[in-house]
Amino acid sequence: MGKKVGVLLSGCGVFDGAEIHEAVLTLLYLDQQGAEAVCMAPDIPQAHVINHLTQEEMNETRNVLVESARIARGEIKNIKEVKSNDIDALILPGGFGAAKNLSEFAFKGPEGEVNPDVRQLVNDMVNAGKPVGALCIAPATLGMAVKEKAPEMTIGKEEQVIGALNAIGVKHKVCAVDEIAVDEKNKIVTTPAYMLGPGIKDVAKGIEKVVTQILSMI
Amino acid sequence: MGKKVGVLLSGCGVFDGAEIHEAVLTLLYLDQQGAEAVCMAPDIPQAHVINHLTQEEMNETRNVLVESARIARGEIKNIKEVKSNDIDALILPGGFGAAKNLSEFAFKGPEGEVNPDVRQLVNDMVNAGKPVGALCIAPATLGMAVKEKAPEMTIGKEEQVIGALNAIGVKHKVCAVDEIAVDEKNKIVTTPAYMLGPGIKDVAKGIEKVVTQILSMI
Repeated sequence: MGKKVGVLLSGCGVFDGAEIHEAVLTLLYLDQQGAEAVCMAPDIPQAHVINHLTQEEMNETRNVLVESARIARGEIKNIKEVKSNDIDALILPGGFGAAKNLSEFAFKGPEGEVNPDVRQLVNDMVNAGKPVGALCIAPATLGMAVKEKAPEMTIGKEEQVIGALNAIGVKHKVCAVDEIAVDEKNKIVTTPAYMLGPGIKDVAKGIEKVVTQILSMI
Repeated sequence: MGKKVGVLLSGCGVFDGAEIHEAVLTLLYLDQQGAEAVCMAPDIPQAHVINHLTQEEMNETRNVLVESARIARGEIKNIKEVKSNDIDALILPGGFGAAKNLSEFAFKGPEGEVNPDVRQLVNDMVNAGKPVGALCIAPATLGMAVKEKAPEMTIGKEEQVIGALNAIGVKHKVCAVDEIAVDEKNKIVTTPAYMLGPGIKDVAKGIEKVVTQILSMI
């Protein structure tokens, strides 16, 4: 049987949801490398809705699961329905949604809350020795969720972000956009993606390496 | 200078907008092959909003340009601001939005209207001898816009869709998902993408070929 890899989405759009390029590239490389993607998202309201043309907040309410379904072409589960036994690995694409809807990192820093279902699934995966990948800003939420394990990860080069994660026990490794950080002990694999950019062909290189590394660790 | 290729979006999501995977793969292969993408969309309301989890219509109004900006990470123009002189080629990703927001094909068949700005730009491109690509269901709208030129294109294998396009003078060529139809006379390049599927790695093959062919025709 093929390997099943959860893809945890956080909406649909870089400023208030999952970064669309990163999510689609994750699905592309999983499919190309013979793995089955299991898309999922929490069934909760988005923290807010951002007009991606003007970057202004819109007076709207949208649901994270419903908007994530756009990326997944309707094939998506409520994260509450997914247990660590159901998947062999998990990948969190980035986008501000990963730090606004999956945790409160974008609003409150590392002292904010992590969505309880996200926290549970991520910890169950790590405790079961199953690999977890995270792209772009998503390592912030992942680091908050598993801080007791002192994970090593990369998250770009913004000093403020790196400092905030160091403060909760996350070790930071500087990586270029086409590189990955591999925490062998916790089986956590990260890449800076659009934290560094600059373009889709650049982030694609790191994301392909994350997928390859994750599948090799199953 | 690099080649500039317009990417005409129609929202954000397969059921009421641009098909996200097709749009992102178009951007990926353009960037990998050294071309600059110029994303654009009409500044008009979507025909409707579909909940991508349930496929039911939602009581909401969304704007095609604003939602398309999610795929373009905010780097997008109103199609009214783009002239054929500004770009070397144009590609229309699919998704129902291409047949709901760029034309009325999905609701009224080939007798429906084409958005006037889309009609103008597409005809200006073809008349200038500049290549135009279309993926999935987007060839329906493209065919409606340039039917006087009796274009040859592929649009999957649904008899009803093929028959509707034949009736307005479009010649149909059957292609597999990893193949492209090339109308050398009109410089129109098409691939079935998710009209056939089944998966992202499959549609990626045809889309990469469309991009390669389009850039070779500039």
